[in-house]
Amino acid sequence: MGSKEKLNIPVISGFLKPVKEEVDEFNRIFKTSMKSNVALVDIVTSYILKQKGKKIRPALVLLSAKLCGGVNESSYRGAVLVELLHTATLVHDDVVDSADKRRGLPSINAVWKNKVAVLIGDYLLSRGLNLAVASKDYEFLEIITDTVKRMAEGELLQIQKTRKLDIDEATYFKVISDKTASLIETCCKIGALSAHKNEEHARMLADYGNALGLAFQIQDDILDYEGVFKLFGKPIGGDIKEKKITLPLIYALNAVDDKEKKRIKALIKKGSHVKEVIEFTEANGGIARAHQTALQFAEKASGILSNFPDSESKTALEALIRFVVERKS
Amino acid sequence: MGSKEKLNIPVISGFLKPVKEEVDEFNRIFKTSMKSNVALVDIVTSYILKQKGKKIRPALVLLSAKLCGGVNESSYRGAVLVELLHTATLVHDDVVDSADKRRGLPSINAVWKNKVAVLIGDYLLSRGLNLAVASKDYEFLEIITDTVKRMAEGELLQIQKTRKLDIDEATYFKVISDKTASLIETCCKIGALSAHKNEEHARMLADYGNALGLAFQIQDDILDYEGVFKLFGKPIGGDIKEKKITLPLIYALNAVDDKEKKRIKALIKKGSHVKEVIEFTEANGGIARAHQTALQFAEKASGILSNFPDSESKTALEALIRFVVERKS
Repeated sequence: MGSKEKLNIPVISGFLKPVKEEVDEFNRIFKTSMKSNVALVDIVTSYILKQKGKKIRPALVLLSAKLCGGVNESSYRGAVLVELLHTATLVHDDVVDSADKRRGLPSINAVWKNKVAVLIGDYLLSRGLNLAVASKDYEFLEIITDTVKRMAEGELLQIQKTRKLDIDEATYFKVISDKTASLIETCCKIGALSAHKNEEHARMLADYGNALGLAFQIQDDILDYEGVFKLFGKPIGGDIKEKKITLPLIYALNAVDDKEKKRIKALIKKGSHVKEVIEFTEANGGIARAHQTALQFAEKASGILSNFPDSESKTALEALIRFVVERKS
Repeated sequence: MGSKEKLNIPVISGFLKPVKEEVDEFNRIFKTSMKSNVALVDIVTSYILKQKGKKIRPALVLLSAKLCGGVNESSYRGAVLVELLHTATLVHDDVVDSADKRRGLPSINAVWKNKVAVLIGDYLLSRGLNLAVASKDYEFLEIITDTVKRMAEGELLQIQKTRKLDIDEATYFKVISDKTASLIETCCKIGALSAHKNEEHARMLADYGNALGLAFQIQDDILDYEGVFKLFGKPIGGDIKEKKITLPLIYALNAVDDKEKKRIKALIKKGSHVKEVIEFTEANGGIARAHQTALQFAEKASGILSNFPDSESKTALEALIRFVVERKS
């Protein structure tokens, strides 16, 4: 279960065409939203803007708004809120993981040290919430504060279970739903709500976002197993080394008897034997079954979209689903 | 400019007598407010409750409410909000400062590592905000999100200025007002607003809290100089070692010519010569003048209280002012 950063990959920018102008407008507002009277804050946030995230979350807000009637002032405010929150969590993640790089540039903690990085994260988060309160976007606030809580709980549940190596299928889905899918879901829901107060559309877009987020995370977890024969790209087996049990392995463990289960868990506990665990997972159909599950969520997401009339935004949201489950890195 | 933790000292509990029952009730609600479906969250938050903070901030909310008419459900919600926020910042502070201890027990990061500590902080913060949104406490939310922003900006301004050794009097007051006084101010304001929607009272209590917070921080900064001859207690000269220029030194530097100013700044830059800098500050009246300034803020706070009829709460809030400027540790 990799980093939240992975949705930000170059290939994705093609999907953003239907909201290109809106994303440009968002970028202008986003830049202004970070402004502070403290020079150090402006120096660090200008640096963050240079790191050029692909803005997939605000784009989801804008695409969802467009699908549901149109982008307006409130859509931009929602997009700024999710991106400020997302940026804050990335800056904090890099502190926790002692990461040196972010989007190809040195991380904030690498340049300005941990204290500044933690404070900038707090600043961005509170700035987002403060702007939302000031605009009386109370519904967005209710959704977003619940999302932040779910994201923290999801990660903490994963840590708790990882320590005991006892993640089952139900727990896995709870973890990835809270940790990863919740924010994607929130982006789509906020976008829909910004367009018009149609609860039915908002629920549908939230379900689309949840399914998309789950498919994304499952594919991410599969790539930790499948990348094995690749010469380039991200290192594989990272989750296994960290003793994280994800869907491919859960399915493979379910397919064998208790004795074999115990043997594999013992291997994982040792923190080595990565290749053997990958081969076990492949041989017992874990990867293939996880693929099937990812495709089911993709189909679910696609089915939800089919309720909307054809449009450029719909095409973009559909292409995003296919991209998520077909990507190889 | 020391840690935010220092208000939590045993001597203080005497002031809380007028709201003892309310603080007990607060403790019950606070405990419930942290409940989660994730076992690891409950284990860590139970541990936080064992660390037994003195709850000075919620007590300020309750005392202010009582002074302005009475404690009600909304006062408790405000008290829970500020304490969840305050607890979140303490947990994050310990990560940033790599602190091993908190309130005599091992810190969260020492027991569960940084990642869990950062996530628990995020959980507590979002939980507080989420409860406030759910109760439609929008006015509290506007105040508290602005406070979190000010606290982060205040600390960042201090870091920015410390790096260049160029903190003047105006900057110093801006830093301590945002970093320390803002939350004390917020506690008093939220307490007043919870009692009744009297904007005049809310403004007065906010001004009381701001003056109290400023007096507290100035005294804290003085103690970094004055403790020099003490055998026990906190190490002195910590700020000087960290190249933090606080009020006593600012006043002393203002009293000498440019050449002498340059010489002292050079000593500080070297990061040694702590004793010499303390003696310089004392000899040039910096400590005495800072004392006078702390007393002026204490008088200001006291003057604001004099507008309220006598009551147990008023006596407690007055005693708190005297304690803040007279304390020796």
